[in-house]
Amino acid sequence: MMLSDIEIAQNAELKPIVEVAAQLGINEDELEYYGKYKAKVTYGLWNRIKDRPDGKLVLVTAITPTPAGEGKTTTTVGLGQGLAKLGKRVCIALREPSLGPSFGVKGGAAGGGYSQVVPMEDINLHFTGDLHAITSAHNLLSALIDNHLHQGNPLNIDPRRVVFRRVVDLNERALRHVIVGLGGKADGVPRESGFDITVASEVMAILCLSANIKELKERLSKIVVGYTYNGTVVTAGDLNAHGSMAALLKDALKPNLVQTLEHVPAFVHGGPFANIAHGCNSLQATKYGLKLADYFITEAGFGADLGAEKFFDIKCRIGNLTPSAVVIVATVRALKMHGGVAKNELTGENLEALSKGIPNLEKHIENMKRFGIPVVVAINRFPTDTEAELELVKEHCVALGVQQVLSEVWAKGGEGGIELAERVLEAVEKPNTFHKLYDASLSPKEKIEKIAKEIYGAKSVAYMAQAEKDLEEIHRLGKDNLLVCMGKTQASISDNPALIGRPEGFELTVREVRLSAGAGFIVPITGSIMTMPGLPKVPAAMKIDVDDDGNITGLF
Amino acid sequence: MMLSDIEIAQNAELKPIVEVAAQLGINEDELEYYGKYKAKVTYGLWNRIKDRPDGKLVLVTAITPTPAGEGKTTTTVGLGQGLAKLGKRVCIALREPSLGPSFGVKGGAAGGGYSQVVPMEDINLHFTGDLHAITSAHNLLSALIDNHLHQGNPLNIDPRRVVFRRVVDLNERALRHVIVGLGGKADGVPRESGFDITVASEVMAILCLSANIKELKERLSKIVVGYTYNGTVVTAGDLNAHGSMAALLKDALKPNLVQTLEHVPAFVHGGPFANIAHGCNSLQATKYGLKLADYFITEAGFGADLGAEKFFDIKCRIGNLTPSAVVIVATVRALKMHGGVAKNELTGENLEALSKGIPNLEKHIENMKRFGIPVVVAINRFPTDTEAELELVKEHCVALGVQQVLSEVWAKGGEGGIELAERVLEAVEKPNTFHKLYDASLSPKEKIEKIAKEIYGAKSVAYMAQAEKDLEEIHRLGKDNLLVCMGKTQASISDNPALIGRPEGFELTVREVRLSAGAGFIVPITGSIMTMPGLPKVPAAMKIDVDDDGNITGLF
Repeated sequence: MMLSDIEIAQNAELKPIVEVAAQLGINEDELEYYGKYKAKVTYGLWNRIKDRPDGKLVLVTAITPTPAGEGKTTTTVGLGQGLAKLGKRVCIALREPSLGPSFGVKGGAAGGGYSQVVPMEDINLHFTGDLHAITSAHNLLSALIDNHLHQGNPLNIDPRRVVFRRVVDLNERALRHVIVGLGGKADGVPRESGFDITVASEVMAILCLSANIKELKERLSKIVVGYTYNGTVVTAGDLNAHGSMAALLKDALKPNLVQTLEHVPAFVHGGPFANIAHGCNSLQATKYGLKLADYFITEAGFGADLGAEKFFDIKCRIGNLTPSAVVIVATVRALKMHGGVAKNELTGENLEALSKGIPNLEKHIENMKRFGIPVVVAINRFPTDTEAELELVKEHCVALGVQQVLSEVWAKGGEGGIELAERVLEAVEKPNTFHKLYDASLSPKEKIEKIAKEIYGAKSVAYMAQAEKDLEEIHRLGKDNLLVCMGKTQASISDNPALIGRPEGFELTVREVRLSAGAGFIVPITGSIMTMPGLPKVPAAMKIDVDDDGNITGLF
Repeated sequence: MMLSDIEIAQNAELKPIVEVAAQLGINEDELEYYGKYKAKVTYGLWNRIKDRPDGKLVLVTAITPTPAGEGKTTTTVGLGQGLAKLGKRVCIALREPSLGPSFGVKGGAAGGGYSQVVPMEDINLHFTGDLHAITSAHNLLSALIDNHLHQGNPLNIDPRRVVFRRVVDLNERALRHVIVGLGGKADGVPRESGFDITVASEVMAILCLSANIKELKERLSKIVVGYTYNGTVVTAGDLNAHGSMAALLKDALKPNLVQTLEHVPAFVHGGPFANIAHGCNSLQATKYGLKLADYFITEAGFGADLGAEKFFDIKCRIGNLTPSAVVIVATVRALKMHGGVAKNELTGENLEALSKGIPNLEKHIENMKRFGIPVVVAINRFPTDTEAELELVKEHCVALGVQQVLSEVWAKGGEGGIELAERVLEAVEKPNTFHKLYDASLSPKEKIEKIAKEIYGAKSVAYMAQAEKDLEEIHRLGKDNLLVCMGKTQASISDNPALIGRPEGFELTVREVRLSAGAGFIVPITGSIMTMPGLPKVPAAMKIDVDDDGNITGLF
């Protein structure tokens, strides 16, 4: 009998989190419990371990996502479980799910099959409240901005140039564009604004890149909220908002520890969008994990063009991290989609479509090698994959000089990830010349073009008038040396979601460039990037329920 | 040296919550920890204790609030500590603070001086996330409504008649009146709407009145979200939203256990507005407390005209509770304000003003006696009170045949509440003929008029055209037998905030009547009731900060 993900998760025997923590040498007084199976780790733990050498850092990334799915989170969990089966001291780290998607299309996000993190329902619902804390801190700043406008506006903020929007952790199409401050003199100053989903908040990015409360406050104070009538920039610090925002975030900054189905310790902490922000779990969780384990496995959002590039160029730079290996997850099904096959026609061998789709994988392999790190390709195996199809993928990997390995972690848990674990153990010992793609000191356009040409394969980059204006403003503000966090569709390596496979010879168009001065990057927006998803015709919310004993159904 | 409330709270030596729970006979496996000093109690505990007899229920209420403050929460905590000093098995219950006021005017809300609940900063910030869960559940329903309008509107909902607004747990004047759904065809259906503060949400009222998940779901499904073009009512159940809303609320429904500075067990759970909702902590917490302790002390919001009336007529009726005594908190300072003295002129003896203000206290005493329960008046003593002033209050209490006692719980903790505790122990043994003010079977107007005339002292009740229309609609929907939850200013016993003291001969004007079909009451709105506060010129948020070790400052 085939069990659903939620059934597998609900049938799991969990260990008390104190025992899971003990596997990493964490003491009970270094934990803050949230129930029996979730805990935050304390600053006291960090002070005890901070001078240790780092373990090996392995990034799990993927080919360009398709509706067929890749299984990046599942592979991350399964690889961790495979390493544990080999007796290694291992820790994994994932991003925290957002309530928006959980109640929208896709159900929960905590791995799948026998490679999940648990307690799954808790992780997918409020978990330890981090996203709520981020929502509160973000919207407190919004309230202070509108209150400033209402209370005489001493800073002379131009209500038409407030760039800081509000957030809600739901899929809320109807809040994308709103007018606030209606009702009359007592009810604020009318102006156009809107809501993004919480994971798109700059506060989320800041939380994920801050090493401690001091840095958190510094970054928060630099958030640009708008401009005065004279064009002077106004920051959260100008409104004296950063202290109370940080007060709301003080616990959210501490990494959350849970476990996989096979009791491998897992940090699940932070979750910025990968198409608009940097798309990986918190730097805090990564740093704790590297000190606590010999092997630390984490993932980055969407395909390697977005998640991995940002992981290396933004997170590794800010955190001074050196990855030891990168795993690219692919499926035969998804590669066939990149070869032009529709989702409902994926059954049955199709070597022609597969051949046409493999260049997507090849481009991502080339890109990862460009960073100087050993690469392993993990084929997330489906029952429908044929031997000839698997062989074809293997040949192409061999031709590029990378290890390819079949992974069956969804169906078999850690047992299905042992071979992958063995290849990763080899890879992390290989020569490693990790380096970032660009120097921060390059001009914004030089940085953008390096990413566009070398990673995406663009022929050229075009800047629309708004983008030019934004770049001038960024220059005027002295922010040319910020990092670049591309805002790009996840559905293609290019900026055109229709271009599947390995697009070539295209021009990347930058429409505008947003400034995330607190997070420390600029965000060139290519195409139409959605920062607030909508609900589908039949939202997952309509199927989710809870019984009289508190058991959740319908979350997957 | 005089310590601030936050300094006292931060200097406190807390007991692990497991030890506090043990005082009430709660086992460790009946707790869900949130850190070391906070826990939720489980349904398993309820199943074990549910057949026990109830302890004595004591309600703490107050005179009509003034800017001078009364100290109702402080008295509730101090009375609990006083009873504990006398060796009694006692438990208290308070409402959960909202983030809005914490970052607005008043700072935190967890008692004061040496009568506080702790950990104070946690309780005043995210605590165990209940308010965030309520916000999420509420706004999920909002998202489902707007998504329904966007996705073809099969129920034929009239966008102009969506009555369910959104909520945010902040003071957000600029969100009182908004237009949502702008931006074009992909971005929803434009319509007018607005945000209330989370504590004004019907979901909060429902959570606080539901005995279990089954009842929670039933009540949620009855929430009226709007009307069709044909005038048919549309509920949350029609949108199939109640299951996922309950899934989001399943942990929020469990009471939170913390402790007072003297380690008295304290439930802090639920916190609906008292001027628009029923204004007391959750029925769940009350029921657990009554089973676990011999003396259970709780409070209700604002003055006795609002909090106590609703406690008796709504909460006691729904929960089948019988209070054993009621404590009315008053201060000499506040009574002098009711006598017409301004806040900055309260120092120095003023027997004339006090005489003019005492009728406010007298009216509340009369009202409480009307319910057939023994009354104790607690004078929350200030250093500036003179002996002659205290004697004058005492004389008036004696004339009405009620016990009056000085309370010094702010300065002295439980020691300062021993005399109060002794008087309460006497009161709960006195004859008790508790009864509700009205029968639910009376017509809405009869119920409204009973409250207006007998409790508020109104001469008559006037209904504006909208109120008449609303009452007709309520009649048409067959909801005449719902309870009445008055929406009235807290600043006066009347509906006019300018009428301090004991207003008489006034006409109460009902402007409209809202329907909270899920909570089980109608809300007649008198005067202008604020369901979304604004921030002051200098919000508390600008003074709140957190240091590098995570210590909060400025919360009081």
